[in-house]
Amino acid sequence: MARAAVLGAGSWGTAFAKVLADAGTDVTLWARRAEVAEAISTGHVNPFYLDGIELPPTLAATSDPERALDGADIVVLAVPSQSLRENLAAWTPLIGSDSSLLSLAKGIESGTLLRMSEVISEVTGADPSRVAVLSGPNLAREIAAGQPAATVVACTDEARAVEIQKSCATGYFRPYTNVDVVGCEIGGACKNVIALACGMASGLGLGENTNASIITRGLAEMIRLGVALGANPATLAGLAGVGDLVATCSSPLSRNRTFGTHLAQGGTLASAQAATRGQVAEGVKSCTSVRALAQRSGVEMPLTEAVHKVCHEGLSVREAVGLLLGRRIKPE
Amino acid sequence: MARAAVLGAGSWGTAFAKVLADAGTDVTLWARRAEVAEAISTGHVNPFYLDGIELPPTLAATSDPERALDGADIVVLAVPSQSLRENLAAWTPLIGSDSSLLSLAKGIESGTLLRMSEVISEVTGADPSRVAVLSGPNLAREIAAGQPAATVVACTDEARAVEIQKSCATGYFRPYTNVDVVGCEIGGACKNVIALACGMASGLGLGENTNASIITRGLAEMIRLGVALGANPATLAGLAGVGDLVATCSSPLSRNRTFGTHLAQGGTLASAQAATRGQVAEGVKSCTSVRALAQRSGVEMPLTEAVHKVCHEGLSVREAVGLLLGRRIKPE
Repeated sequence: MARAAVLGAGSWGTAFAKVLADAGTDVTLWARRAEVAEAISTGHVNPFYLDGIELPPTLAATSDPERALDGADIVVLAVPSQSLRENLAAWTPLIGSDSSLLSLAKGIESGTLLRMSEVISEVTGADPSRVAVLSGPNLAREIAAGQPAATVVACTDEARAVEIQKSCATGYFRPYTNVDVVGCEIGGACKNVIALACGMASGLGLGENTNASIITRGLAEMIRLGVALGANPATLAGLAGVGDLVATCSSPLSRNRTFGTHLAQGGTLASAQAATRGQVAEGVKSCTSVRALAQRSGVEMPLTEAVHKVCHEGLSVREAVGLLLGRRIKPE
Repeated sequence: MARAAVLGAGSWGTAFAKVLADAGTDVTLWARRAEVAEAISTGHVNPFYLDGIELPPTLAATSDPERALDGADIVVLAVPSQSLRENLAAWTPLIGSDSSLLSLAKGIESGTLLRMSEVISEVTGADPSRVAVLSGPNLAREIAAGQPAATVVACTDEARAVEIQKSCATGYFRPYTNVDVVGCEIGGACKNVIALACGMASGLGLGENTNASIITRGLAEMIRLGVALGANPATLAGLAGVGDLVATCSSPLSRNRTFGTHLAQGGTLASAQAATRGQVAEGVKSCTSVRALAQRSGVEMPLTEAVHKVCHEGLSVREAVGLLLGRRIKPE
């Protein structure tokens, strides 16, 4: 039986730890706050990030990274992308030298413009063949509720991808393997920016035609960026591209979509943050790094550009959506 | 100024005639029933198929095809795909010999397995270069309400595509040209079948992850079929593929989605038809012809196969969705 450590007890980290436990993997979940770890270990719930979901009694939690990482064959990184580097630096001495490192984080690191798998290799010194990413249409709450979902486990070392696949395959969770790490990560990094744009359009009262057009344009620029970085376009037409994008852009539960809607309705970054439980939507940060990566790669990403201008340069949502649709959006 | 005839006053025919009129094209709309034509010509409404939308006073309607077609440069075919051949046979003597023929119909003809543009060429004798198709994320009601939308006008004769583009470009409706007629038609024919599958999953209580997975799988098999028939995969990754698919599968207004939901909730084809204003969803018919076309082309389309089995071979929705997701879907 494989042993896994899940580092990060937010909604997705907690839901994925449940998947691992349900798949028969021996899993320990690390939470930063002792009270979160305590609620999971003794009450089998995570009322802070996954309220109302009963967790398996076999799922242990701790706020001690050393205990979580002890003997782990698979180290699952489920902290926010912009804090991954700092966290990893502290954990590196505790990580086994042949363990697989599986990233659930989605985004491009600010400043360095590194993908999460690159950050992981750089900080831990692990060979890239030890680093895998998991991505797909995986809204945490639905998976935690046992609804069926499929996902992609990507690793350049296919045997490692298969090992991870086995550790998390359950009746309701179906992982497919892929060797295209770059494609999976580009899909995951871009989709939050596109979901922000969909939320903005929805907040202006625009309907399904506009939403579908934004998703289509977003997919096109995601594919352009991916291909420029060496991704297989088929990955982006698959579960980790279109699949994740459609789930994220369709869900009223998506934080990025909600954030965009709030901005469209006259909210500021600060008030939108307050409306989404104090958390800034990932797309607000990643639009800047995705845009910079596109510029460095010589790829045009007008949708990402427009979202960046709204979030960081004071462009109004109405002007931004008008730019995207090639027309002025007049008030109702 | 171009002169257009729109043949068929259902919701999309009526909405597109409004777009043409708003674009400054001289347009006459043909309705089978005199009372529909009368309501449009004198009351500027179509209470039968597009209730609550005010139509431009410049939009004339008639139930006389000869009057509608008189001097038309652009003949827009907006009747259901399975009745296109019969209608066209009657209209052919009235159609000008250099007019452009624009298909709004989506589907594959039963029995012959022809695309709509092929039916049009065959029946009218028009050279394929005179036949165009229009397809994109275009829910009729949103467009009729003046919400922004983009679409694709495809014709092997690019100049003709541009002429049609000009006739229907308005502030809220943005047509892009393409020469890939096959890609646009395959996207349009397959999407209703996939929307039925999404409706079925939704009717079983499954959420956004499943919906996105079905859209992703559906897109993959749509691309496989299109490529086998000579389409450009980029067309299917664009507005007439992903765009139309996402709009159709996301909309609670979609008849195909609603039909699938009704079937999942224990309804029969007959009761689902009664629940959707007496009309059978297009996907119920086209799943059979798309499946036959796939078999003839040696392409695997398991999603289409499953929808066909539910609609025409008595498979339960629960078993079909289970097959698609590679697992048993247990009762809640």
